[in-house]
Parts: sequence; structure tokens; C-alpha cells
Amino acid sequence: MIDCGEGAQMQLRKSKLKFTRLNHIFISHLHGDHCFGLMGLISTFGMLGRTATLYIHCHAELERLLTPQLDFFCKGMSYKVVFQTFDPGKAEIIYDDRSLTIETIPLRHRIPTCGFLFSEKQTPAHIRRDMIDFYEIPVYELNRIKNGADYTLPDGKIVPNNKLTIPSALPRRYAYCSDTIYLPRIIEQIYGVDLLFHEATFAQSEQARAKETFHTTASQAGEIARTAKVKQLLIGHFSARYEDESILLQEASDIFPNTLLARETLKISIESIKP
Amino acid sequence: MIDCGEGAQMQLRKSKLKFTRLNHIFISHLHGDHCFGLMGLISTFGMLGRTATLYIHCHAELERLLTPQLDFFCKGMSYKVVFQTFDPGKAEIIYDDRSLTIETIPLRHRIPTCGFLFSEKQTPAHIRRDMIDFYEIPVYELNRIKNGADYTLPDGKIVPNNKLTIPSALPRRYAYCSDTIYLPRIIEQIYGVDLLFHEATFAQSEQARAKETFHTTASQAGEIARTAKVKQLLIGHFSARYEDESILLQEASDIFPNTLLARETLKISIESIKP
Repeated sequence: MIDCGEGAQMQLRKSKLKFTRLNHIFISHLHGDHCFGLMGLISTFGMLGRTATLYIHCHAELERLLTPQLDFFCKGMSYKVVFQTFDPGKAEIIYDDRSLTIETIPLRHRIPTCGFLFSEKQTPAHIRRDMIDFYEIPVYELNRIKNGADYTLPDGKIVPNNKLTIPSALPRRYAYCSDTIYLPRIIEQIYGVDLLFHEATFAQSEQARAKETFHTTASQAGEIARTAKVKQLLIGHFSARYEDESILLQEASDIFPNTLLARETLKISIESIKP
Repeated sequence: MIDCGEGAQMQLRKSKLKFTRLNHIFISHLHGDHCFGLMGLISTFGMLGRTATLYIHCHAELERLLTPQLDFFCKGMSYKVVFQTFDPGKAEIIYDDRSLTIETIPLRHRIPTCGFLFSEKQTPAHIRRDMIDFYEIPVYELNRIKNGADYTLPDGKIVPNNKLTIPSALPRRYAYCSDTIYLPRIIEQIYGVDLLFHEATFAQSEQARAKETFHTTASQAGEIARTAKVKQLLIGHFSARYEDESILLQEASDIFPNTLLARETLKISIESIKP
């Protein structure tokens, strides 16, 4: 989960996602609309008898603020909450496992803030069963072949790897950038991602207000997406003044056509693209 | 406002009540579902430029827990949050103004908890204009008459107050009792109130579980209402296990017919009753 505003546990329930699938929460910055839902979520998990550790990745300040509350409200809970703190001011890998790395994207807002870049790792190629049978390749060779090795036949002839495998899908990347002033320096880090969530708090007519409050306009978000050559842009974090957010969608789409408006419980599948 | 669980600010907005009308919040006890909405509400009021002081009436522990958060999240806010702390273990008047007193109702739950009794003050009687004119009573006498004085005519004859006034409506009383184990000792304090909100977390079939968790069953809530001869009972704080809460309504109504089920944004007018 990225950020956890008030009501996040209700939204999570609405979305029908399994609570037990959630093990890591990434907090971009310490404004209330990005973290006031944590205490409720953590307590509810406790009442549901959760046992798996929950990791909160955040600025150290949040650990200081939440610890007294956890001590008071969550005494004797059946699971642990572990804070993994980072400095949002510098890009660094804050999570890494078999299939995924997550790194911070330093942003510029009124307080220390960062976005997050989720990068899948390349998975091994798929074996072509028919070719393995044809060349009578023994099972113990398959792992090496999956990882790119050629195969040498008993007569010394070499079968190149690309005859024995089908490349796996390209690893997908997702970048989340909120809240931030228009910040072209992030382009390098998010270049070519499959999906970019970018805040678009204001319309371009409120450009001055956006700058003043360290937010981005919908046009500017479109500009970032276009220059970074992302595959898809999702804009969100709209000011409450826009009852009809289609003006924001229009503005961003004018610059970057493949743009979507974020709305509650929206689900987006990021397609695996064949190489 | 009584209690302030997560999402209270959203519910408040849905209810269309004016945020500026809210000046006092009364917290019954420090479980998350009764106070996790405070930070969000307080911050939002700040962003809306509120200037009037907001009073939080609560156990001293809450002030200790919220102060570091207020210092961090609500720096430079345009209004003050003032905590008025009380000991929930003893019945005492914690608020008093021209028209209203509020006193705590000590309850028994897993942690220190109290309910609240809201008592309107008797307002002065209404002047009978026709009689004032008939007796040619000067204006400067009216306040005394409103407050119960008789009037002496120039010839020494006394006009009794009840000929000059119509009694004002009886002052209304509302009692809020949640969370608590079945606790007959509250009956004396809430006797005859116009409206009683009482928790009814479980059905009678879960009586043992209710006792164990220091909650009340719907039947027990009906029993309290009947014995206390209240005018109307509103039950709420239902366990999530009851998808259909009509079983709880049925149980309470069997014992105390004038019972209502609490639901989100429900509004109840408490009628002024003529004496």
C-alpha cells in the first residue's frame, strides 16, 4: 500500500482485497491525508488476529509519532509493526526481494517527501518443451538454459539458447509521485515506466497557486509523462474545488493522450509486454 | 459531537451539518473506534481556516497522546484546540452554559469509560401578551413575571403568575451510554430521559460474550430503557457479525417498544413536551 489516509481501511474493505495480502506500507510524506489512516488500519488488523509482521516504510519522524499511540492503543496485539525508516531526500532502494525492488524518488513538497518506483525483476526465459524433447536434453540442464545458456549436443554441435527458450515478459515498472511541485528532474528516474501515478492537484489556470503550495497542474503532469515517455499516466490528488475533474483529464490528455483519472477503488492491470 | 471514530469528518460532511457549529467534542473512552477520527477532523478544520476554539472533553491520557501529533501536524493552525480533561470514574458536570448542562455517566468497560447526560435548562415562561395589556403591566415588570413573579395591581390586588404566563416546554434530556457492560446502576442517573442512546453490541444469544468483552446485549439495553422509564431508546454500536441488525431491534423492542436502530447519518428530533 502506498500512503494511508483516513478511511484507508474502509476503502481496502470496499476494494475486496485480502487484508492478509498487505505486508508493506510506503508513506510518501507526513501530511494527514497520507497517513492518518494508519492507526485504524493497524488496530483493525490486530482485532482480526493478524500474525504476520506489518512493515511501515517511512520518514523516521512517523515512527516517533506513532510509537506512543501503538503502545497505548495496540497493547498485546497478535502481530508486530516494524518501521523501516528512510531519508526521502535521496534516491535509494528501500525494498528488494526475489521479484521486486522499490526505490524512493525524491520530490519537492512543503515537507520532506518522496515518491516510489516499483521495478519487477526480469524472470527467467520459458523453456520450449518441444525443442527440449527434440534434442533429448536432460532435466538437470534446464535451469542453466532458462537462465540463458546454450546447449552442446553430444556431437559437439551447439544449439543456441534462443532456439530452446521463449523470452519471458519484460519486467514492469510503476512510479508513484505525490505530492510534489512540477519537478522535471524526476524524468530520468521514471523514464519509460509502464504506469506513472502523478499528482495533478490543480488545473493550469491555477498554476501560480500550484507553485505556491508545491503542487503540480494537470498539464504539468502530462508534460512529465510525455517527456519521460511513460506508457500510461494516472492523475490524482485533485483539489476539492474541482467537482468535475474532467477538466483536469482534458488538460493532461491534451499533452499526453494515454491518461486516466484516479477514482476510488479503481483497479488497473499493468499488462506484461512481450519483448 | 460525542466520540469521533475514523471517518467522522466524512460523516459530518455527509450529514450536511455546518462544521462551524461544532465547538465541543466529548470522548467516552480511548478505544480507536471512538477517537481515531480526531486528528483528521482537527486538521481539516484548520485547512478550512476555522478560528473558534475547539474543546475536546476527554480522559487526560488523550491529551498526552494527541499533543505531539497536534504539534507536528497542526503547526500554525488558525484556531486553538483545548483539552478539558475529566475522570470518567465519577459522575460530574463537565459543561454548563445558559441553556445546557452536561454530566458524565460512569460506565464499566475494559478501560475507563463514561457516558454523557445532556440536560437542557428550564427556560423562562412565555408572557401572555393579552393579559399584560389587560392589566396594563409596564414593560420593566416583564422579566420578573417571566421568571415566576406574581403582579400586584395599583389597588393592591394580586394577579397570580399563572394567569400572566404560559409555562415553557419541559427541558429535554439525552443520555449517551457506550461502551459498557449491562450496568443497572446507571438507571438512577438517566431516569426518565427523553432519548437514551445505549450500546447493544450483541444479541442475547451472545450474552456470555457480551459480559466477557464488557458490552451489552440488545435485550439488556431494552431492560435498562424500560426500568429507567425513558421516552425513547436508540440502540447502536452493533458487532460486525450482525449483517442484518433487525434481530437486535426485535430483541430490544420486545422489552421496550419505543426503540430505534442507529444508522449512519440518522437524525432524531427530540420533541419539546408541553408541561
